[in-house]
Amino acid sequence: MAYQLYYWPGIQGRGEFVRLALEEAGAEYVDVARGRGGVGAMQRLMDGAGATHPPFAPPFLKDGEVLIAQTANILLYLGRRHGLAPRDEAGRLWAHQLQLTIADIVDEAHDTHHPIASALYYEDQREEARRRAADFIANRVPKYLGYFEGVIERNPRGDGYLIGRRVSYCDLSLFQLVAGLRYAFPRAMARLERGFPRIAALHDQIAARPNIADYLKSKRRIPFNEQGIFRHYPELDVAR
Amino acid sequence: MAYQLYYWPGIQGRGEFVRLALEEAGAEYVDVARGRGGVGAMQRLMDGAGATHPPFAPPFLKDGEVLIAQTANILLYLGRRHGLAPRDEAGRLWAHQLQLTIADIVDEAHDTHHPIASALYYEDQREEARRRAADFIANRVPKYLGYFEGVIERNPRGDGYLIGRRVSYCDLSLFQLVAGLRYAFPRAMARLERGFPRIAALHDQIAARPNIADYLKSKRRIPFNEQGIFRHYPELDVAR
Repeated sequence: MAYQLYYWPGIQGRGEFVRLALEEAGAEYVDVARGRGGVGAMQRLMDGAGATHPPFAPPFLKDGEVLIAQTANILLYLGRRHGLAPRDEAGRLWAHQLQLTIADIVDEAHDTHHPIASALYYEDQREEARRRAADFIANRVPKYLGYFEGVIERNPRGDGYLIGRRVSYCDLSLFQLVAGLRYAFPRAMARLERGFPRIAALHDQIAARPNIADYLKSKRRIPFNEQGIFRHYPELDVAR
Repeated sequence: MAYQLYYWPGIQGRGEFVRLALEEAGAEYVDVARGRGGVGAMQRLMDGAGATHPPFAPPFLKDGEVLIAQTANILLYLGRRHGLAPRDEAGRLWAHQLQLTIADIVDEAHDTHHPIASALYYEDQREEARRRAADFIANRVPKYLGYFEGVIERNPRGDGYLIGRRVSYCDLSLFQLVAGLRYAFPRAMARLERGFPRIAALHDQIAARPNIADYLKSKRRIPFNEQGIFRHYPELDVAR
């Protein structure tokens, strides 16, 4: 039976990390809120009158009777089923640890344009966004990318992945992080990325995988836009 | 062999969620950076010249050869070993999902006093903190607490826990969240909590558990303070 993915229909957002794993795995899935049921179907599950495991927020995944929320948790589940993570416990925890660290920088990327409140418009927090984005670019992006660069470098199995000799959901997520940062901060990233050649190579390697390359060309890939997590506001893209 | 917990020695912070699980389990552990090795021992592991699985940030836990970082990931590991989470896969994922949702509000609580940059002093972002804290109290705390209240209410096994008939690490973390919010925002919480009686009852039930009660009275429990995640700045505690 096809997976049912529930996420906001107009953005890549956090749902994209799940979509990339499903696409790489060649798994059948329905992107529910982009179909006939729309956001209403998603909202009903969240309100969850009947659900014992109601999600706090999208994305969430339904696999038959199992309903799972929280992006990293969904990937923990999918990784095991589709060979997108190591099978042994230490390896699974390590993959999950990396994913949670990617989730942390994704949260911070979101807060560059919404440092005060998600419920307010960007225009109502633009000055604060300028300050936060400047710190993000100067301090946080280099710290996180330096960390992931080191993980790729020290992977004892080598071959340019974060973990072992095979692609994992963390590699897919790191690809998405880089794509998002490049979209949001093209000038800053052009400068910063020179310091992280292994990450840039991993990005290209993932983009070239047959299932991912097909997906990126398809209509299933929603373009980046200014409603998502990674938004391009030129005034926040400080090149220094 | 005793667990080795690595976390900043002067604050509860994210390490506290791990400490509470270890204390409830009656597990032997060394709080490494609070001992002779100090922060240096922690820093060496983070710099991780030799570590294949280097942490990005504390807390991290060493269990023999296994090194695990990310608070929720550590709890996933401990929950399984100490009966602090359901044993079946669906139950484990549900517990982890709740923990990740608690981690999200903890991040937001941190950002009430540091909305612009962790690296800046509070005093350098006080105005922004005022705006963010007001939104946190008005919108985010009620949304999260309403969610957890509903989870306790709809737990089919009842008995006041988040999951099933037994205490889980999520219950311990929800206790800590409530304790932290009460410390940071006493006036706001006095008003808000009336709407969430099951959460208040769970807090009291956890505080009264023998191992937790012993711990809270001990010197191992670092008092809340203004270096941690939950900080009491009266100007941010809007009662409305």
